[in-house]
Amino acid sequence: MSVCVEFQPIGRRVDVQEHMTVLDAARLIVFQDQKIMTAPCGGRGQCGRCRIRLLEGTVNEPTESETKLLSADELNQGVRLACQTEVLGPVKIEIPPESLVGKQNLQLEGLDYEIEVEPASRRYVISTEAPAIHHPVSTWQQIVRELESEHNVENPTIDMELLRQEIPKEHGRQLTTVTLQDREIINRFDVFPAPRSLGLAVDLGTTKIAAFLVDLESGDTIGSEARMNPQIAYGEDLMSRLAYCRESASQSRQMQALVVDSLNKLLANLLSKTGAGIQQVEHAVIVGNSAMHHILVGLPVHALARSPYVPAATLPIEVKSRSLGLNLATGASVYFAPLIAGFVGGDHVAMIAASRIFECEGVTLGLDIGTNTEIVLAVEGRLTSCSCASGPAFEGAHIHHGMRAVEGAVSSTTWSEEEQKLHYRTIADAPALGLCGSGVIDAVASLAEARIVNHMGLFDRSRSEVRIDEKTGHPEYVIVPEEKSGTGHDITLTQKDIVAIQLAKAAISTGTRLLLSEAGLNKDDVDKIIIAGAFGSNINVESAVFLGLLPNVPLERFQNVGNAAGTGARLMLLSTRERQVAEKIAKTVGYLELAAHPKFSQTFAKALEFVGSHS
Amino acid sequence: MSVCVEFQPIGRRVDVQEHMTVLDAARLIVFQDQKIMTAPCGGRGQCGRCRIRLLEGTVNEPTESETKLLSADELNQGVRLACQTEVLGPVKIEIPPESLVGKQNLQLEGLDYEIEVEPASRRYVISTEAPAIHHPVSTWQQIVRELESEHNVENPTIDMELLRQEIPKEHGRQLTTVTLQDREIINRFDVFPAPRSLGLAVDLGTTKIAAFLVDLESGDTIGSEARMNPQIAYGEDLMSRLAYCRESASQSRQMQALVVDSLNKLLANLLSKTGAGIQQVEHAVIVGNSAMHHILVGLPVHALARSPYVPAATLPIEVKSRSLGLNLATGASVYFAPLIAGFVGGDHVAMIAASRIFECEGVTLGLDIGTNTEIVLAVEGRLTSCSCASGPAFEGAHIHHGMRAVEGAVSSTTWSEEEQKLHYRTIADAPALGLCGSGVIDAVASLAEARIVNHMGLFDRSRSEVRIDEKTGHPEYVIVPEEKSGTGHDITLTQKDIVAIQLAKAAISTGTRLLLSEAGLNKDDVDKIIIAGAFGSNINVESAVFLGLLPNVPLERFQNVGNAAGTGARLMLLSTRERQVAEKIAKTVGYLELAAHPKFSQTFAKALEFVGSHS
Repeated sequence: MSVCVEFQPIGRRVDVQEHMTVLDAARLIVFQDQKIMTAPCGGRGQCGRCRIRLLEGTVNEPTESETKLLSADELNQGVRLACQTEVLGPVKIEIPPESLVGKQNLQLEGLDYEIEVEPASRRYVISTEAPAIHHPVSTWQQIVRELESEHNVENPTIDMELLRQEIPKEHGRQLTTVTLQDREIINRFDVFPAPRSLGLAVDLGTTKIAAFLVDLESGDTIGSEARMNPQIAYGEDLMSRLAYCRESASQSRQMQALVVDSLNKLLANLLSKTGAGIQQVEHAVIVGNSAMHHILVGLPVHALARSPYVPAATLPIEVKSRSLGLNLATGASVYFAPLIAGFVGGDHVAMIAASRIFECEGVTLGLDIGTNTEIVLAVEGRLTSCSCASGPAFEGAHIHHGMRAVEGAVSSTTWSEEEQKLHYRTIADAPALGLCGSGVIDAVASLAEARIVNHMGLFDRSRSEVRIDEKTGHPEYVIVPEEKSGTGHDITLTQKDIVAIQLAKAAISTGTRLLLSEAGLNKDDVDKIIIAGAFGSNINVESAVFLGLLPNVPLERFQNVGNAAGTGARLMLLSTRERQVAEKIAKTVGYLELAAHPKFSQTFAKALEFVGSHS
Repeated sequence: MSVCVEFQPIGRRVDVQEHMTVLDAARLIVFQDQKIMTAPCGGRGQCGRCRIRLLEGTVNEPTESETKLLSADELNQGVRLACQTEVLGPVKIEIPPESLVGKQNLQLEGLDYEIEVEPASRRYVISTEAPAIHHPVSTWQQIVRELESEHNVENPTIDMELLRQEIPKEHGRQLTTVTLQDREIINRFDVFPAPRSLGLAVDLGTTKIAAFLVDLESGDTIGSEARMNPQIAYGEDLMSRLAYCRESASQSRQMQALVVDSLNKLLANLLSKTGAGIQQVEHAVIVGNSAMHHILVGLPVHALARSPYVPAATLPIEVKSRSLGLNLATGASVYFAPLIAGFVGGDHVAMIAASRIFECEGVTLGLDIGTNTEIVLAVEGRLTSCSCASGPAFEGAHIHHGMRAVEGAVSSTTWSEEEQKLHYRTIADAPALGLCGSGVIDAVASLAEARIVNHMGLFDRSRSEVRIDEKTGHPEYVIVPEEKSGTGHDITLTQKDIVAIQLAKAAISTGTRLLLSEAGLNKDDVDKIIIAGAFGSNINVESAVFLGLLPNVPLERFQNVGNAAGTGARLMLLSTRERQVAEKIAKTVGYLELAAHPKFSQTFAKALEFVGSHS
């Protein structure tokens, strides 16, 4: 039997089957372009967010969930949970302001502002009737008509694969949930209520792929997982991978398939943890550097792999996930953030979007430090970016005893002037196995502070602490003697290691200096320096400043924002408005090509020196 | 060397390389959203349409084409052909009004009105520069930027397959022509000027596939070709083919592939005749009945193949041609006209659009007669359609000596009351081989007129002309005696043939009557009857009226419009505005389900009788 549910204060009515819950009834209503009620737990009686008050009519007795989540006072006043309340006759329901959905606001970790949740997709619940001779109208046609007449969707279209699927034979009336992106129907659920809508945000790095599973209604990140980029087997750096792709179309496809496979596995893991299904994942956003982007999208990489390193195209790209072999919901698409240049990719755009650099007053620098370091300079909202080939030294690669930042890595050192001795700490205080990036920087800074290494980066061979390697004749310094190390060998810092750090920090420093100089500014004009990226999170800023890797400005001007690229990807997934902002940024940001700058060599040569001072 | 060409009266200038033609210079200009000059022959000096006048400056001497196509007077006054005139220094050119493109208007055969040519695609010529270290911007990015800044295309996108193609390494400046559909770039030409833009219009019939190759700039149909629908091997009628498809997904794909293959061959033939290439074919429009549409698009046919015969979806569908295996330009799409119901397809929509029934004043009937006959009734612009299962008798099938309308077919007969004899004519006056549809109708009408067949369709066995078949015992009439036939046998009309015609004409007549009766009208209210379709073109209207196949109204109210479905397909290809009109028609036309009508059986039984009167 069908009964009428009336919602106040919005004054909307809906006819539903007896025993339907008030929440499901509310899901049938779109008011001012939005659903009227929120249920973060998906209507399982767990979150207590869908409070309503019964004004008139008959409903079931309060359930166990309700007696747990509501006070006796509330229950006496007729307060109930919409997801637990079954209508047993015509009812009038009041939705209190806190249950009535305004715009959903959201704060992502690492951001100090809120965004409105307004993803690219939107769901509608449509009541359809089985086709019959006096009503020879297909389910799809009924859905299309209702979207046009009731929801003001102009000329809706249907994803071709979805349309090609057989609709199960129906009997009588039923409720179908459809998901639209723009005016295209991309997904359909015949069960009611439909399981919640999810999205996937990916930061596709050269070394690591980080994936986030996001609830597209509440905006909550319900899972995250990372794995190594499997392309590493074909080269640690971008250039070797691009070279491998250039050799043949099948090698390009192989590299593409490696990442697609990883993404499918990452998503499968995330889903199995939450009990959700692939058909719920209705959209994805991927941000990555230009090389990772081109390989995954399948764009030609020839121009990207040789000077002047030009991407085939920098515009934002949206494709059906199935066209890439990515397993999402039937009609789901994948959005690739726009690029800026060959070495300034979508991850940099995401970092700018998430860190809000474009809204900063005064002068702000943003650095995403890694094998390739992108720097953006914002002067009253005008942005210019550049790319510095900082190399893999900060990730512990090409360092004699280098290692990644895992248990046992020396992650920080200090020089004790009194004891004339270098102290170190390892991650998890485990026996030392090697030096990670922050440890290397600290060690070089400590030795420079101790004047064991001079401002040119050369060991002072007259110092007793400096040891000469018998085989190579090169000087080195023992950070951890063999008796204390976890490897049974000395852990040393070599002259070659120092040169690697010098080259890396000179590259970054040159970028910073030329960006500032092009804008007619110097380091003292910089009001704020934002450090992003995994390595940036662990860096000892004092040491980095001491070496000249970071500009010598007061420490309080530095701000660490963590994996801003990943946050930016989620931002673009959750808000089309934020996505548009990011697209505008990518179009308008200036690009400074360092290699073409007349002062590049001179600035770089000078930047090789250690600054050697905290002041 | 670069020189300036100024065009009057529009006051636009463009810098071009010396020796470029004035036509190519004009192609660089878009004025008021349009190209400024037309060149139907593609700039080969053949059509003489691109006349201009040289006001100032130096150009080459008139060419042979020009001395042929222009008068001495014209040449003296400085009149030239833009495609033959090379600029040798700065010049000022006047474009006379007839060469200046206004909206291009077009009349298609069969239509008594003109349309503006405004296809879904539009071309732009973009000047690009090879990427270099001081200008590290890809060709695509330059194109996108110029589309945004110079041509007001908001956020252009690029077809993924096009984007995945390697762009040949460039040197210096060059002119690239791109084709856009909406805001997507679907094609690119590196040669300048680019070959002309073509489109393909297809009327996909159960029996015949008709294809038209159309110039999307001038609107001219430059070729047409038809071939049998190869699915015929799997059943002459729709139902057998749908049944074959339902058996397995691979059989569905096989049926789809047969049509795709035919279309590719049709297009290849059309192209080879005109010397054009596949990359020029930038769009296609296909109209067809719901079954042909579903099989080609790959939609589920289960619901279409059983009562109540519901199409999976009736909305217009646009897909990339490559997704169907159709060989057109890289990013070209195929547009499928919307359907109305299970037996009222896109060909009917195209017929309504082309015949302008929706604009007719008063009461108009439109009939597309075939194996399935669609009828539309327009009352002051309000449309209602129905479908009649008229069967294949009109196409000569299931008629004892039936044949298609080819050489040797008896196509018309008359009864001479004086001679008491039936006269006949054959196509091309060849010796008679059988009866085609119009011949069968004429013959039945003649025999009814002669009262050899009574109003119930039964032979008068008392007449000496009526012969009894020895084997079956059924009566028959010899139309062509064996000594005069081309087969050496008698060509006869049998009692069974007459029943087939009775059933067919009763089906159509029932549709007409119920449509009129539902609108509260009768045949005398009908102001105009439009007959479409191949069979309709050949029919003897007087005989059809005499039998009651067509309503008994004055002959001058009948109008024959030929293959209106094919014309409608070209209309939708050439004009997005007309396409929108057609989509609106499909949405708003009412559908009368005859099988569900309470008076169907009664009306049908009555309609079996022959009217037997010309008055």
